[in-house]
Amino acid sequence: MNELRKEVKLGKLEGIFTPLLVPLDENSQINEAELRRFVSWLIEKGVHGLYPNGSTGEFTRFTPAERRRIVHIVSEECAGRVPILAGAAEANVKETLFACQAYADMGVRAVAIVAPYYYKLAPESVYAYFAEIARNSPIDLTLYNIPAFASPIDVNTIRRLADGFPRVIGIKDSSGDLAFMMRMISAIRPNRPDFTFLTGWEAVLIPMLMIGCDGGTHASSNVVPEITRKMYDMYRAGDTAGAMKWQYRILELFDVMLNLPFEFPDGFRAAAALRGFHFGHTRLPQTGAQHSQHKVLSDVMQCILSDFELVNPPAAGCPVRSGEIGQDKLQQMVQQVFYEMKNRGIV
Amino acid sequence: MNELRKEVKLGKLEGIFTPLLVPLDENSQINEAELRRFVSWLIEKGVHGLYPNGSTGEFTRFTPAERRRIVHIVSEECAGRVPILAGAAEANVKETLFACQAYADMGVRAVAIVAPYYYKLAPESVYAYFAEIARNSPIDLTLYNIPAFASPIDVNTIRRLADGFPRVIGIKDSSGDLAFMMRMISAIRPNRPDFTFLTGWEAVLIPMLMIGCDGGTHASSNVVPEITRKMYDMYRAGDTAGAMKWQYRILELFDVMLNLPFEFPDGFRAAAALRGFHFGHTRLPQTGAQHSQHKVLSDVMQCILSDFELVNPPAAGCPVRSGEIGQDKLQQMVQQVFYEMKNRGIV
Amino acid sequence: MNELRKEVKLGKLEGIFTPLLVPLDENSQINEAELRRFVSWLIEKGVHGLYPNGSTGEFTRFTPAERRRIVHIVSEECAGRVPILAGAAEANVKETLFACQAYADMGVRAVAIVAPYYYKLAPESVYAYFAEIARNSPIDLTLYNIPAFASPIDVNTIRRLADGFPRVIGIKDSSGDLAFMMRMISAIRPNRPDFTFLTGWEAVLIPMLMIGCDGGTHASSNVVPEITRKMYDMYRAGDTAGAMKWQYRILELFDVMLNLPFEFPDGFRAAAALRGFHFGHTRLPQTGAQHSQHKVLSDVMQCILSDFELVNPPAAGCPVRSGEIGQDKLQQMVQQVFYEMKNRGIV
Amino acid sequence: MNELRKEVKLGKLEGIFTPLLVPLDENSQINEAELRRFVSWLIEKGVHGLYPNGSTGEFTRFTPAERRRIVHIVSEECAGRVPILAGAAEANVKETLFACQAYADMGVRAVAIVAPYYYKLAPESVYAYFAEIARNSPIDLTLYNIPAFASPIDVNTIRRLADGFPRVIGIKDSSGDLAFMMRMISAIRPNRPDFTFLTGWEAVLIPMLMIGCDGGTHASSNVVPEITRKMYDMYRAGDTAGAMKWQYRILELFDVMLNLPFEFPDGFRAAAALRGFHFGHTRLPQTGAQHSQHKVLSDVMQCILSDFELVNPPAAGCPVRSGEIGQDKLQQMVQQVFYEMKNRGIV
Repeated sequence: MNELRKEVKLGKLEGIFTPLLVPLDENSQINEAELRRFVSWLIEKGVHGLYPNGSTGEFTRFTPAERRRIVHIVSEECAGRVPILAGAAEANVKETLFACQAYADMGVRAVAIVAPYYYKLAPESVYAYFAEIARNSPIDLTLYNIPAFASPIDVNTIRRLADGFPRVIGIKDSSGDLAFMMRMISAIRPNRPDFTFLTGWEAVLIPMLMIGCDGGTHASSNVVPEITRKMYDMYRAGDTAGAMKWQYRILELFDVMLNLPFEFPDGFRAAAALRGFHFGHTRLPQTGAQHSQHKVLSDVMQCILSDFELVNPPAAGCPVRSGEIGQDKLQQMVQQVFYEMKNRGIV
Repeated sequence: MNELRKEVKLGKLEGIFTPLLVPLDENSQINEAELRRFVSWLIEKGVHGLYPNGSTGEFTRFTPAERRRIVHIVSEECAGRVPILAGAAEANVKETLFACQAYADMGVRAVAIVAPYYYKLAPESVYAYFAEIARNSPIDLTLYNIPAFASPIDVNTIRRLADGFPRVIGIKDSSGDLAFMMRMISAIRPNRPDFTFLTGWEAVLIPMLMIGCDGGTHASSNVVPEITRKMYDMYRAGDTAGAMKWQYRILELFDVMLNLPFEFPDGFRAAAALRGFHFGHTRLPQTGAQHSQHKVLSDVMQCILSDFELVNPPAAGCPVRSGEIGQDKLQQMVQQVFYEMKNRGIV
Repeated sequence: MNELRKEVKLGKLEGIFTPLLVPLDENSQINEAELRRFVSWLIEKGVHGLYPNGSTGEFTRFTPAERRRIVHIVSEECAGRVPILAGAAEANVKETLFACQAYADMGVRAVAIVAPYYYKLAPESVYAYFAEIARNSPIDLTLYNIPAFASPIDVNTIRRLADGFPRVIGIKDSSGDLAFMMRMISAIRPNRPDFTFLTGWEAVLIPMLMIGCDGGTHASSNVVPEITRKMYDMYRAGDTAGAMKWQYRILELFDVMLNLPFEFPDGFRAAAALRGFHFGHTRLPQTGAQHSQHKVLSDVMQCILSDFELVNPPAAGCPVRSGEIGQDKLQQMVQQVFYEMKNRGIV
Repeated sequence: MNELRKEVKLGKLEGIFTPLLVPLDENSQINEAELRRFVSWLIEKGVHGLYPNGSTGEFTRFTPAERRRIVHIVSEECAGRVPILAGAAEANVKETLFACQAYADMGVRAVAIVAPYYYKLAPESVYAYFAEIARNSPIDLTLYNIPAFASPIDVNTIRRLADGFPRVIGIKDSSGDLAFMMRMISAIRPNRPDFTFLTGWEAVLIPMLMIGCDGGTHASSNVVPEITRKMYDMYRAGDTAGAMKWQYRILELFDVMLNLPFEFPDGFRAAAALRGFHFGHTRLPQTGAQHSQHKVLSDVMQCILSDFELVNPPAAGCPVRSGEIGQDKLQQMVQQVFYEMKNRGIV
């Protein structure tokens, strides 16, 4: 175990972890300088932790070597200021365990392992997969449940893993299903009070905190880290109403970033670029029609961010906003863009 | 307009509405005496309103004449003590409007209309359907969105209806999706502050209230109306933590009632019977295997209800409960039953 | 048992059964004269049987009394020329059995019962439902599996019903899944060689016949009964290639009729109207936008039908057709219309 | 371009391509000797082509280097006897193009590229992805549509790619949807008569050939290559009835191999092992319960294969088979095993 590893603090994971976007240069290679600048900016803006190699980090579009390099850069730049949760899923259990060891050596707090994807596995196989990793991992691990993309992890499987393996210290759930989160908490917390429950569905962060979640890994914190942190702090300080007001305010931004014509996480890349970072183009090819649509939406997002007083409005200005969600011109503008997309047969 | 109608109070709908189970006699006919006794019991236990002819009320399994009779009995027994929201969907718009008139004459506060089912309709057709009803209804109406069973009603359709028709005064949404509820509230409340948002997914009642819902129509309130009311009151009085504690406690009961081997709403019928009412057998035929499974689960539910101090434990007693959700013996017993079901090839 | 009943021939069901569209008059009432004319026209054009009160017949949009009247008219007009399969599903088992008796008295060959819908039932409950009906029905019955709209009927349930109840004489399956059909045939035909397998997915009629189906209930036979019959006869006569050529040719028409902006079965109503019948407007309300879209598509369908030499082309003429499916102008025209729909935000 | 490449014959792809299972040794490494022996055996048994790195080949569970090694071994052993279609999807377009070049250099006939998975992409993005590869590929490519695992490729996208890029020479579709296949053939064959349509859903191979498919890539051909070939030849020789008889006979085997408790492609690995090859354990971990279930099912499969006269029955013997599918004891035995699985909470 190296020096870095020795100093990792092993407390319970909590708060907002940023599932890091990865800046690319003009050759579609990792832009190390920009990634470092971005990491430090996020930490300064108050995120509680960093989560490289998540879905937002497009882990599937990088090679195994690139995934290691990303964690290495992040870890080095972070330098222990906040805990790191590193996505470590590779092609099979053996490769995943190599990655676990590599990330342990880099001093990350824990790894996150997404359930097997492509093939949709039954619960018994999902259990066998995580059990094999947990049995051999040199580092704490969190389960990552994202049923829209990967095999679902059901409550009974989580309980079996939590009961059987101290190395399994938490779950990140991106289903957004509050009742499911409550069922997990009911089933596991009594035996494992140290177990961490993180939501990956930021549209309902505050309700998730209210039912007992410890925090979340939120793509939006790449774009508005100060707001995500503020919401979290307001809720923890007892100002639920204030936190909910922000929850409602960022919903409009979230919906623009999340939906077509953007493919996830392109909308988040485009919005984060407005904060002054060079994210470059995604590795997923785009047609000319998509490029021009994204350009229009970038202005829409700039208006929303200027309304949050985080950036200047676009040169062409923004429609007057009423301040009331749902009735202002900006929303109509977003609608307009979506109808245009439809005209071109995209949506 | 008759006398009853004149006296209906037209304030905003809020609180817990009970989607009424319908007691049947040994001939599978509506048990009027028991239905009356049940209605009065619910009102005494504190529910804010009654909702006959909902999914819990198995409206599809009654004839048009029976549906009218149910509302008539409920309305007469209720006698204005609480508002009534009556399910009025019939085979087509014309028949539905006849039912609206009939229920208006019976003095109900509003009708609830489920989106068209069987055929899955596109948003434009869902809009056309509700618009035609809203244009001609003699009584206020609420939309009923239950995408698991019927054509989904999307946010844009709800906004078009809310903006276009004052007769449309609210929506009951049973999707259980908090982000969807927030999108509806964002889109509609600014223009229609009188519009009511009710959740039909009681597993998350308190979080739904926190994001701004006005109440809910909850099948569980047929079984534990005093607890549903208490949770609501605690939340409104500012005791979120207390309300959430109950939200967690009733989750176990809810899950047993909702899931196989029970077909919805048989689990709720069986549990409500434990409160001292004769609900009779559902109109849906059951095999002998199902009957014996239900019998076992009835004891499980009786143990949960006795833990709530609402009924006595079953004669055979209950396993010792730890008081900690998720670790006690009762839950194991429930598991046991489910595994037995699986053995018989049911689940 | 009345006179009509005595004369019903009880051979195995086979061939093409038309799931009858119902003509409505300007008041949205059943247009009896037109329905009679339509029934006789279909028989003259060669359909092997009639199937009133199916999904194509919009059975859910009629009242119980109207459903009986439809079967009565059809039965009387048919006068024993072809067998009738009458949809008999009502609100519950008791009402369904009343309908079975009524239709038996009207001299239909058998009833068809769709699996319970709205609530999605587990296999054991689907079995219990059909078993109860089969045990008490005064007339032969066929199961109707349409998983897109109703609770699915799985192979094991069908086997249990086929093995247990001689009254259950067949299944109509609208899933369009050939492997599922093969599994059913494998499981049931050895014990019940008399059992009829009908496909409701006409896009693959000829392949379904090839794997052993006895026929189908095809919405398109309302529109092009002579072609549906010709395809069937060609296949039975050993001309598979010829039958497949027609299968490909009617696919374009089928896809226009089936898809948005038409709600099922409006496209079939509009196309059947081109054959010279007054179908009137559906009972499902439509917006002005929908009306104008349907008008455009009616011309498209008229061009296809004129290409089949069944009707004259529209006054404005048709684009030149290459004769090669997939590359001609008409298909582009259809595309054009769909893009227009999208422009208006409909699709 | 190397020597191998020069000699590749560029005719239209047709017939049965085996999506190769990969034998592993006791260390879970590629068992090269066994893979070579298997490849030659398949060719001798008559398969028309080989398809390494498909879903059956568990391509996602190998590293990029291992995937190259598999194609290298297969190509060398094949030595031009049959054409090779090599799965070439890697983490991103650049890596995929490197693989295309590598496989071209190894002398494969074409590459197969699965649609992007994990993230579910919209049609425009699926188009952009394949267009970018087609524009730059040094070798012909086939699209691979498997909507259960990856982003769906719709008809319009296939048409755009077929019309725009001569390098795109075919599609392998694993949806099993005959109407979809007909729509593709209608849309593309007129302009591209050279375009190949392969089905990946072998349960309906013969019906797919009847509607015009050129062949298929069938996992079962790893297990019963002589039967798959025989079926194909019978159909091409005009003996549809004979081909269909075999289609029905192998359905039972296919269903056992495909379904739980096997995870795909473990059932195919276990069955192919019965033909005398050492496939070793899959890289996906399994629990003890799963191992013992698979053991039981292996005997069931051995009985089916012995019924085909391809292997000896298991030592313990087989139940008497009636010869009629659906009524024999073996099927009951399979049922029995499945119920046992359920008892243990697996299925």
